[in-house]
Amino acid sequence: MRFFSDNAAAACPEVMAALTEANTLDTAYDGDAHSARLDEAFSALFETPVRALWIATGTAANSLALASLCPPHGGIVCHREAHIQNDECGAPEFYTHGAKLMLVDGPGAKLTPTAVEALLGSVRGDVHQVQPRALSITQATEYGLVYTPEEVAALGALCKARGLGFHMDGARFANAVARLGCHPADLTWRAGVDVLSFGFVKNGGMSAEALIFFDPARAADTLYRRKRAGHLLSKGRYLAAQLLAMLEDDVWLRNACAANEGATRLAAAAGARLVYPVEANEVFLKVTAAEAASLRKQGFDFYDWGSGEARLVVSWDQDPTHIDALAAAIAAL
Amino acid sequence: MRFFSDNAAAACPEVMAALTEANTLDTAYDGDAHSARLDEAFSALFETPVRALWIATGTAANSLALASLCPPHGGIVCHREAHIQNDECGAPEFYTHGAKLMLVDGPGAKLTPTAVEALLGSVRGDVHQVQPRALSITQATEYGLVYTPEEVAALGALCKARGLGFHMDGARFANAVARLGCHPADLTWRAGVDVLSFGFVKNGGMSAEALIFFDPARAADTLYRRKRAGHLLSKGRYLAAQLLAMLEDDVWLRNACAANEGATRLAAAAGARLVYPVEANEVFLKVTAAEAASLRKQGFDFYDWGSGEARLVVSWDQDPTHIDALAAAIAAL
Amino acid sequence: MRFFSDNAAAACPEVMAALTEANTLDTAYDGDAHSARLDEAFSALFETPVRALWIATGTAANSLALASLCPPHGGIVCHREAHIQNDECGAPEFYTHGAKLMLVDGPGAKLTPTAVEALLGSVRGDVHQVQPRALSITQATEYGLVYTPEEVAALGALCKARGLGFHMDGARFANAVARLGCHPADLTWRAGVDVLSFGFVKNGGMSAEALIFFDPARAADTLYRRKRAGHLLSKGRYLAAQLLAMLEDDVWLRNACAANEGATRLAAAAGARLVYPVEANEVFLKVTAAEAASLRKQGFDFYDWGSGEARLVVSWDQDPTHIDALAAAIAAL
Amino acid sequence: MRFFSDNAAAACPEVMAALTEANTLDTAYDGDAHSARLDEAFSALFETPVRALWIATGTAANSLALASLCPPHGGIVCHREAHIQNDECGAPEFYTHGAKLMLVDGPGAKLTPTAVEALLGSVRGDVHQVQPRALSITQATEYGLVYTPEEVAALGALCKARGLGFHMDGARFANAVARLGCHPADLTWRAGVDVLSFGFVKNGGMSAEALIFFDPARAADTLYRRKRAGHLLSKGRYLAAQLLAMLEDDVWLRNACAANEGATRLAAAAGARLVYPVEANEVFLKVTAAEAASLRKQGFDFYDWGSGEARLVVSWDQDPTHIDALAAAIAAL
Repeated sequence: MRFFSDNAAAACPEVMAALTEANTLDTAYDGDAHSARLDEAFSALFETPVRALWIATGTAANSLALASLCPPHGGIVCHREAHIQNDECGAPEFYTHGAKLMLVDGPGAKLTPTAVEALLGSVRGDVHQVQPRALSITQATEYGLVYTPEEVAALGALCKARGLGFHMDGARFANAVARLGCHPADLTWRAGVDVLSFGFVKNGGMSAEALIFFDPARAADTLYRRKRAGHLLSKGRYLAAQLLAMLEDDVWLRNACAANEGATRLAAAAGARLVYPVEANEVFLKVTAAEAASLRKQGFDFYDWGSGEARLVVSWDQDPTHIDALAAAIAAL
Repeated sequence: MRFFSDNAAAACPEVMAALTEANTLDTAYDGDAHSARLDEAFSALFETPVRALWIATGTAANSLALASLCPPHGGIVCHREAHIQNDECGAPEFYTHGAKLMLVDGPGAKLTPTAVEALLGSVRGDVHQVQPRALSITQATEYGLVYTPEEVAALGALCKARGLGFHMDGARFANAVARLGCHPADLTWRAGVDVLSFGFVKNGGMSAEALIFFDPARAADTLYRRKRAGHLLSKGRYLAAQLLAMLEDDVWLRNACAANEGATRLAAAAGARLVYPVEANEVFLKVTAAEAASLRKQGFDFYDWGSGEARLVVSWDQDPTHIDALAAAIAAL
Repeated sequence: MRFFSDNAAAACPEVMAALTEANTLDTAYDGDAHSARLDEAFSALFETPVRALWIATGTAANSLALASLCPPHGGIVCHREAHIQNDECGAPEFYTHGAKLMLVDGPGAKLTPTAVEALLGSVRGDVHQVQPRALSITQATEYGLVYTPEEVAALGALCKARGLGFHMDGARFANAVARLGCHPADLTWRAGVDVLSFGFVKNGGMSAEALIFFDPARAADTLYRRKRAGHLLSKGRYLAAQLLAMLEDDVWLRNACAANEGATRLAAAAGARLVYPVEANEVFLKVTAAEAASLRKQGFDFYDWGSGEARLVVSWDQDPTHIDALAAAIAAL
Repeated sequence: MRFFSDNAAAACPEVMAALTEANTLDTAYDGDAHSARLDEAFSALFETPVRALWIATGTAANSLALASLCPPHGGIVCHREAHIQNDECGAPEFYTHGAKLMLVDGPGAKLTPTAVEALLGSVRGDVHQVQPRALSITQATEYGLVYTPEEVAALGALCKARGLGFHMDGARFANAVARLGCHPADLTWRAGVDVLSFGFVKNGGMSAEALIFFDPARAADTLYRRKRAGHLLSKGRYLAAQLLAMLEDDVWLRNACAANEGATRLAAAAGARLVYPVEANEVFLKVTAAEAASLRKQGFDFYDWGSGEARLVVSWDQDPTHIDALAAAIAAL
């Protein structure tokens, strides 16, 4: 019973069916019929004209987004525990040709305007220091917290005032939308977000994320950068098909709801053991080494998180009986 | 009836079945059971211990290979019409951080030791000039010619003598092996090749190429570079599964034979119109604009190649009746 | 009697005096009184508001210029024998983060609009190919030929029509102006040049070149790039002082005239041996190996240029008796 | 009476004389007689064979050093307040092609093995995280503290044990040696330092720092990188001459002693106001805004350092009467 991560789960049936459906000759790269429908499909979802590109990984989507917002000599403000800082082996630096990540603290890997302003205020405006040019937040955060539309908008206003591009790493964007019950537009462009990495792989996709430019003109150079990075697959239709399949009938939202709901059940069992409120599909738990060992002995696998904590992640297809069993086991600790 | 390219064809049934078979929870990235079998499977094929990595595109595979062989201040010798020079939007420069491609001429996009030596001889050995550090050849070439084991070995000897790393862009390696009937080892490490981009996507794969290091130790840094480039897919098992499926029962070779055979039939019909001997699955034809138009009017699609030439590519799954029809149409021009 | 190059000659007395004059405490970097005068001094010379930066080398000046005109995924059109291609160890690739140099041929290392258009016409406008974004010419060329204002303007018009930034590598810009007797503005911004590397080191300077932005706004990012490249010297006043000293009383022009005049004397002696007309301070001579050896035996040092040619360069301070002696020796061959 | 920084002071007479002495034709780049003597001169100083390169700035010297020790996908451990992190506009990222600076805290900008080990221990050894490959310390630190030979050796041992390259940013190396009275070798290679940026500009030089490789073989690639960065001046002899002039008769040590001695006098006057012990030529002082204003009113210029502190730097040629006056003014606050 594995609760390691949502990034290794199976692909959902709609995605598998879409691959089969797309498995016929079509124009190469993104010249195919599936890819051609992406802009329209995501524009409809976001209620504004967007440019939507398929990208095989979240790391590449994030890095391409950042490269579109920040020059090599600029800085990217993000949380000290952001995925782009800690888990992408310097991909942002590679794609931006050496921009500097400027780290801000805050509980639950969440940024506030105050904390961001404090960092901005510490930078001298001379050529000896890297000047901040972009802000990146993770939605939901690395600790499973969500930014409300108001919180995003406050950061968006700050970005506008300070001339920063605004990127949202939405590896678990679907979980955030599912949790908040708000319109995707309210969490993004209406709140000032310029570019969104819209995650599908952790949510039932196989190998396709969507990179969304809310200003379509801004995507132009990224088309070259995607190719140059070896991310323009010749049979791109299989990626487009995955995204379209998950947009249809709100599969993306249904999957995210399922994952969130499982995490909520674990949270209820965890009670005071929770390190953070559970707002998406991740649960961080205070456990002693003995308790962790006990859970593992009962067949539950998960990551230790620092000392004294455990991370449990619920996938879109997590077996409900496993979730119930884990909830019971936690309650019984 | 499309003869544009082999890079847009459907994925073969074995690949589709493998995706379904792999569609269950496993460890993320390349920690899964499928990925774990790659080294062994390719080592068996090549009869030597290799390190084999899945990569989503040939462009990324080529660029990672080159970055492992050439420092940012070095040069990569290749043909003026090489894919890495003309069709990858500067990906080698991106991955190597600015190495210079040093271009050599030769009929059929094929390099000879003489031509390579001439270029090497033109470089001053001082710090003002970029020093060549690697050689890259395409097998089969961009014009569908194959290097024999002896030809590869001659270039391999030159590389060894001159201290150059030796990369083979094997986007159509399978077609070359199929044509030559030789052992894959004879075309690669036994002939001095250090790193091979072994293409599967043009040959019936969906989204996986293999990057083969014949010196396994050389792969170490590439593991970081792959991640850093956003090419370490979290559900990597689907890529590994494609490769394994095509290795099994020599699907890769069977598919390539089918494509080659189709091209051979077209070549027979083309006779004196052939620009190059047909040695793989590409046919370059001398045609007037009127003749090209006539073929298109009959329902055949293909690329014009410069003025007065057409390129026809036969895929692994090209409909035999289409091939016969095209052959007849060419013969009737 | 050394005729190797003008890049190793002594610094002229005005420059040495300026260093002494500047040798007192002032604000660091480019905050000093000398640096503050650069924009005005060069704006006066060019009769238009410019932004002028001191840079320690021509290679850095060229590369910073190119980085301001071309993105990492773009291409820079230049002559196959351009200094930026052959003699800067890939500095343009380093500073642009991997832009591709796109090589054009032409006698005397000189570009024509026809040749440039031919190259541009060969590039497909898709994401698979690097798109040209800048043009760079050398004035005087690597073979000592000069572009007239009309020739520059023709290339400038082409750049404007095709959306290319226009850079002039003016390592020997002074020699070209001296030769043409035209106004510096006519050779540059009035002819469409965006950025000029204005060479002083080959012309009697010690360690300062000027990088001139004819659109001052374009210099903004370069200030960061210069610092980031380690080219913002803390005691920048010594570089500014060199440039100011050579602008005063047209020292730069006087030095260039002296060098050109020497070359003209050698050219007269060379007659039919000349490979190119002598238009600046370089003389390319047809000589047999025996003749070259004979000249060397008489005490003249110079570079062989390919086989059967010699390159002679006259410096601003070349001893007139040496020039006369060499002229006589050439005539006597 | 300016106490802003030592990086804007005049060049010392020995340096000016050396420029005049070198002002005659010699071979270009580093082929001249002065440059040829550098390795020997620095090898004598350090009592071991070294490779010594002139570099125009400390930023370039540091960055070239780091690029020789750390690959693009690696990390460089340094203090959070290190010059390479805060004052070089991302030059290390530019030269290393995107390596990540990994920041460690510690009073006085000084690193301890314990603090470094803590950071190393926090890095997971997988491909998702940037792996530390080098350590860089500043001697004297950004707050004017010195590392003793023993302290350097402890860090050197750590580097050896953990496979890190060891760089010393010796912008004020001379001041540290002057303070410690130890042999330069004991502070560097004998303590495990691989590469040293040996500063001369802040110590009476004009435009030359020395980059010292204690393993000469390691310098090989740096020769290309220096050229590629536009830092191979064609008249390099003027840089070499500066270094040689300051090595001769220990000018470098004499200048540093003078600066240190001035700072010591200020420290004596400052007493309890000192933020850090004064071990080199920098004095950090607790002052109220009113006190700072009072000092300025008396004609003393300096930088505020955060709120409530002032930084005073004494140059090699600081007027003793100014130092006395400032000491008196501080004592009288």
